[in-house]
Amino acid sequence: MASGEEKFIDMMRALAVDPAARALVDDAAVIAFGNETLIITHDMMVEGVHWLPGQDEADIAWKLVATNLSDLAAKGAEPVGVLLGYMLGPDDARFAQGLGDALSAFGVPLLGGDTVSAPAGGRSHGLTALGRATHRPVPARDGARPGEVLWVTGPVGAAMLGFEALRDGNAGIDTSAYRRPCPRLAEGIALAPLVGAMMDLSDGLLIDAQRMALASQVTLAIDSAAVPVPESLRNSRRREAMAWGDDYELLFTLPPNQRPPCLAYAIGRAEEFCGDSVLLDGAPPKGRLGYWHD
Amino acid sequence: MASGEEKFIDMMRALAVDPAARALVDDAAVIAFGNETLIITHDMMVEGVHWLPGQDEADIAWKLVATNLSDLAAKGAEPVGVLLGYMLGPDDARFAQGLGDALSAFGVPLLGGDTVSAPAGGRSHGLTALGRATHRPVPARDGARPGEVLWVTGPVGAAMLGFEALRDGNAGIDTSAYRRPCPRLAEGIALAPLVGAMMDLSDGLLIDAQRMALASQVTLAIDSAAVPVPESLRNSRRREAMAWGDDYELLFTLPPNQRPPCLAYAIGRAEEFCGDSVLLDGAPPKGRLGYWHD
Repeated sequence: MASGEEKFIDMMRALAVDPAARALVDDAAVIAFGNETLIITHDMMVEGVHWLPGQDEADIAWKLVATNLSDLAAKGAEPVGVLLGYMLGPDDARFAQGLGDALSAFGVPLLGGDTVSAPAGGRSHGLTALGRATHRPVPARDGARPGEVLWVTGPVGAAMLGFEALRDGNAGIDTSAYRRPCPRLAEGIALAPLVGAMMDLSDGLLIDAQRMALASQVTLAIDSAAVPVPESLRNSRRREAMAWGDDYELLFTLPPNQRPPCLAYAIGRAEEFCGDSVLLDGAPPKGRLGYWHD
Repeated sequence: MASGEEKFIDMMRALAVDPAARALVDDAAVIAFGNETLIITHDMMVEGVHWLPGQDEADIAWKLVATNLSDLAAKGAEPVGVLLGYMLGPDDARFAQGLGDALSAFGVPLLGGDTVSAPAGGRSHGLTALGRATHRPVPARDGARPGEVLWVTGPVGAAMLGFEALRDGNAGIDTSAYRRPCPRLAEGIALAPLVGAMMDLSDGLLIDAQRMALASQVTLAIDSAAVPVPESLRNSRRREAMAWGDDYELLFTLPPNQRPPCLAYAIGRAEEFCGDSVLLDGAPPKGRLGYWHD
């Protein structure tokens, strides 16, 4: 797993010594700012990696907003605004339309950004989302404690099915889970005062659970039969869905007797670290855990 | 001038109705945050547009940091930190080195960001810089008033000469003005309580002066002989230097009897709007005013 991305992130970690950076192992930076706490995150999307060539530009814009707001949701933050880094493309008006739809749906203002011409080979965009903490201490990935229950706010695998239908031009299937994810902002705010650890699912349930487990120095034992999946998912693809990303549900732990204040599914438990970060039905999961850039 | 960039920015302006966005006509967003004022900006760099293919990755990183901090300088802001949107490339270690050098030179922490694989055709990076206002009201482009004197903190054209030497492989010429610009942070903080309008020079003196004039609804009358240029610049290229960008000096106005608290050059005067935004030696400048993406 010593990919180029991992090596570069290690170099960045050596620079990110400020406590606000949370050693780059969290969804967002957390900065004391005056008498408030600022939450800030920046995610990019690349053509051919994060979207299919030819995909509706309005959906690309929506997803760029949603994925960044999802990082704020994981911190229980209330969005303050976004800055857009945009590369001019084949249909700027459609992009602007989708951006406006997303900002209006989530009640977030556009504050600024930059617009550039695209190089020949492919486009990419970046978005910075800024939020205000609604609860301190701000939830983090490293707060899971043995004995806590592991929860997820919704199904995993819906984005995978949406992606496949879009790629294959299968018009009979709803692809909105892949194209237009909804950040769990209200859930994040309701959960922030209660959770041990919290994060959003972006790269796959198993790899994201592994990140939470490593940060918290616990083992997360997941019961695969308890993991919610879309009704239309074939049972044989349940394991695959757990390693597919883009679902943007919240993954969190709560004390054993605490009921979540929002719809959520108990999928496992935090235990004393047993030598493996994640157990799936009692054994370390074999094969791919999630998405990782090479 | 109805370029794709301008059309897209017009669409964004329709979305950026929050006063913090300053209608996207300023260098950075200005946000009341708790009992402080937050300044935030995001700029991108694209291979082949903002840097030469094959250029030292450490210089690219430096410039990415410097150009964004220059936007903070224009607001008299003290930097709080940066978030990096990075595309993996041919020499990630050199990039990390240059990034570390710049952050250390300007005393700014890395707070977070994102790393992605590059598409086939070309790379781009984005950087978000976050700062704290040191003076309120925060300086803006729209504050120039008739009678004020127009100043610039340093020469224009140095980046142009550096770019040409680098492109032509001319080893005898110092190219650092193009490769490693220095944001005028200390100057910006010293000037903030005194200026009418202030902005940084990124796209060319004439086009940037035009932006300040339009925002302020005045005419800026520039005396070309008073504009500082590098000693090595041939006099025949003085007009060209005024339309070349990348100099990252501060352009600002002061009341007629106010001396600047830092090194600066008086280059003209703000006047009642006369029908032209910018006059150069008494006449509207002909030809190209600066850099504009198509």
